[in-house]
Amino acid sequence: MQEIQIGILGLGTVGSGVIQILTQNAEDITNRTNSHINIKKVLVRDIQTPRSVSGSFTLTDKPKDILEDPDIDIVVEVMGGIEPARTYILEALHQGKNVVTANKDLLALYGHELLDVAKEVGKDLYFEASVAGGIPIIAALKQSLAANRISTVVGVINGTTNYILTAMAEQGRDYDEVLGEAQKLGYAEADPSSDVDGLDAARKLAILSSIAFNSRVTINDVHVDGISRITADDIAYASELNSCIKLLAIAKHQQDGLEIRVHPAIIPKSHPLASVGGVYNAIYVIGDAIGETMFFGRGAGSLPTGSAVVSDIIQVTRNIESKSTATINCTCYNDLPLKKSDNFNTAFYIRLRVKDEPRVLATLALLFAEANVSFASIIQKQKGNKEAEIVLLTHPIYEGQLREALESVKAYSKVLAVNNVIRFEGN
Amino acid sequence: MQEIQIGILGLGTVGSGVIQILTQNAEDITNRTNSHINIKKVLVRDIQTPRSVSGSFTLTDKPKDILEDPDIDIVVEVMGGIEPARTYILEALHQGKNVVTANKDLLALYGHELLDVAKEVGKDLYFEASVAGGIPIIAALKQSLAANRISTVVGVINGTTNYILTAMAEQGRDYDEVLGEAQKLGYAEADPSSDVDGLDAARKLAILSSIAFNSRVTINDVHVDGISRITADDIAYASELNSCIKLLAIAKHQQDGLEIRVHPAIIPKSHPLASVGGVYNAIYVIGDAIGETMFFGRGAGSLPTGSAVVSDIIQVTRNIESKSTATINCTCYNDLPLKKSDNFNTAFYIRLRVKDEPRVLATLALLFAEANVSFASIIQKQKGNKEAEIVLLTHPIYEGQLREALESVKAYSKVLAVNNVIRFEGN
Repeated sequence: MQEIQIGILGLGTVGSGVIQILTQNAEDITNRTNSHINIKKVLVRDIQTPRSVSGSFTLTDKPKDILEDPDIDIVVEVMGGIEPARTYILEALHQGKNVVTANKDLLALYGHELLDVAKEVGKDLYFEASVAGGIPIIAALKQSLAANRISTVVGVINGTTNYILTAMAEQGRDYDEVLGEAQKLGYAEADPSSDVDGLDAARKLAILSSIAFNSRVTINDVHVDGISRITADDIAYASELNSCIKLLAIAKHQQDGLEIRVHPAIIPKSHPLASVGGVYNAIYVIGDAIGETMFFGRGAGSLPTGSAVVSDIIQVTRNIESKSTATINCTCYNDLPLKKSDNFNTAFYIRLRVKDEPRVLATLALLFAEANVSFASIIQKQKGNKEAEIVLLTHPIYEGQLREALESVKAYSKVLAVNNVIRFEGN
Repeated sequence: MQEIQIGILGLGTVGSGVIQILTQNAEDITNRTNSHINIKKVLVRDIQTPRSVSGSFTLTDKPKDILEDPDIDIVVEVMGGIEPARTYILEALHQGKNVVTANKDLLALYGHELLDVAKEVGKDLYFEASVAGGIPIIAALKQSLAANRISTVVGVINGTTNYILTAMAEQGRDYDEVLGEAQKLGYAEADPSSDVDGLDAARKLAILSSIAFNSRVTINDVHVDGISRITADDIAYASELNSCIKLLAIAKHQQDGLEIRVHPAIIPKSHPLASVGGVYNAIYVIGDAIGETMFFGRGAGSLPTGSAVVSDIIQVTRNIESKSTATINCTCYNDLPLKKSDNFNTAFYIRLRVKDEPRVLATLALLFAEANVSFASIIQKQKGNKEAEIVLLTHPIYEGQLREALESVKAYSKVLAVNNVIRFEGN
């Protein structure tokens, strides 16, 4: 039986999950690979810190103990962050090791560079865990849906924001309050900006888009907008419109290029992603042959993310065994143009505070009509002393039309405030 | 560039889809494989019949033109049925060809034999399209979830019965009427027994169970019950119980063995599979590392099934290119015992017609209590002249308890009929 030696860089949440799964399911994994996978060394910051996982592996605080160990076949990078992870992975590849990583930050910026080096040295670089935890969306796009031209990828791929928006909707509470609670429970970080500002989802979407459309997309190409301006009022109005609010990651291959965006969106309750609550993730894909398909599961956590990492380790082990590493590398054979947000065509939800006087709604409708904007739904409610709140749901329009309409609306003396503008995504 | 020659056995719905996808997406497929995939020959019953697809391939009515053609690398079997498909696939493998098949009937009975021969001759046998159309559930179980010990697989994997049950629920119509309509629309076959009796789902479940639990399960090991006894009344009561009725394919790995069953089941509307309507399929999987996960998409049809076949062709092409065919073969390294239905522990929905007299419900409750059966819900409705209908939802019990209770209930003079008994599956 073949013996595969692995070295793990990092022993945080994901690293501990990887060790737990490899230990607990060792017998099945051996049967599934015809190989014995042995954890030889684990890189940690401080070898004195007490650890919750144990095994026959050696702890080290010197990267080269792993990167330069000639016995190690697979380096598993679960440290996160750009540096030193990037340098370590490049060094591991140059030392002739296969690499499995869960690092979305790195892949979203330097995926192409790393995949090119892996190809050059004939080794595998697998990264299923970098997007949507245990959900096998990367394998699906690279292999199981390879017959298709993918037109659309829409995901709920950030658990923190989904937890916050779900709790706001279920409990009618406001953003700051729920965020504070999420931080206490460990669902949001002390500095939550990467999640709530949409950057985490944008990184994952960059990775998914590159694979789905075979064209390089980095985090810098994603149009990003976060959830911090979503209020309990918006969520209540969405509910009146038989809809809910999700942070969506949307990638579309259209005639005029790729449309890649992350933002809060109002979606009908009948939308396949509407029922994805709490810390779950789901990714909805449309391909020309398969039609609509969806993948659902836990998007984060020690064991779900560990599931993706260990399944990658198993696949790389099979590749080592059959001498077929580096079979699937970078497949960005297209160079598709990126659409600017001016050219995104979506419906909008617009919430306005106005004076509650006759003809205000009629005037507003005229101002919008001048920018060629018409409405699918209107809600008007009296608010306090001679004021009203109006919620408008437009038909699909371009951002330019929205801007033009909002300018004349803001200049109209009866409009007290434009409280919020949120994109609306139909089915 | 490598040239891969394929021969297709069968030019029905799936065969036409395969040709359409390979033709339409040829450029992308070449980019994704670094190979040119050429359809060389297609086996048909009658080469004179006019065809809706065309190409540079040759039509033949002689199997050996394909099976013995030394140029052909991959044989694609999309004829269906046990024979002659089995003989052709065995011959293809012995002639040193890789095989891609969509044949669930064959895999559910002879999967092990075929996989053993494939291993022996060092060739690939791929069969993603045999279960749930385009949904990549086999690749998920064999590869992407390989880190996990799978405890549960529950699927809505038969489109015909799901279409019928969905239409019955949405339109309040009865089984025979909806079946007749489904036959006219082409969603059900002239002889619908394979679908409505649950055999089609049982075949797919046998394949899924074998892979999920690494233990051989054939169609003969599946406890099967069809949907023909489900009435509009049952569906209306299910709806009152905030539930719906689905034909479920359920496979569980439990301490005392494998529980493999296909039957109509009442499930709460909050169940992840409850919203899978019409011709869609979904498969819900629980693994020890990944937790709950679900895969959703079209379960049948020319292009969705073709998507799975062509993605398999692409994968086999990559394997040929990297000289790594036969890497993943039969993985039935376990030999787990099969549970008998006596040992299935589930809740039941029981619909009775009784005389509408005092103390009938009390007496019934006592009779059930003697068999240790208690209730989660009870609905009683007056029906016509001094009769009532009672619907009981039990707590989980064994079949033996159900039989014992039903015997004494049937012997009770106030009970006019036991109208239906349906298993109930919670979340």
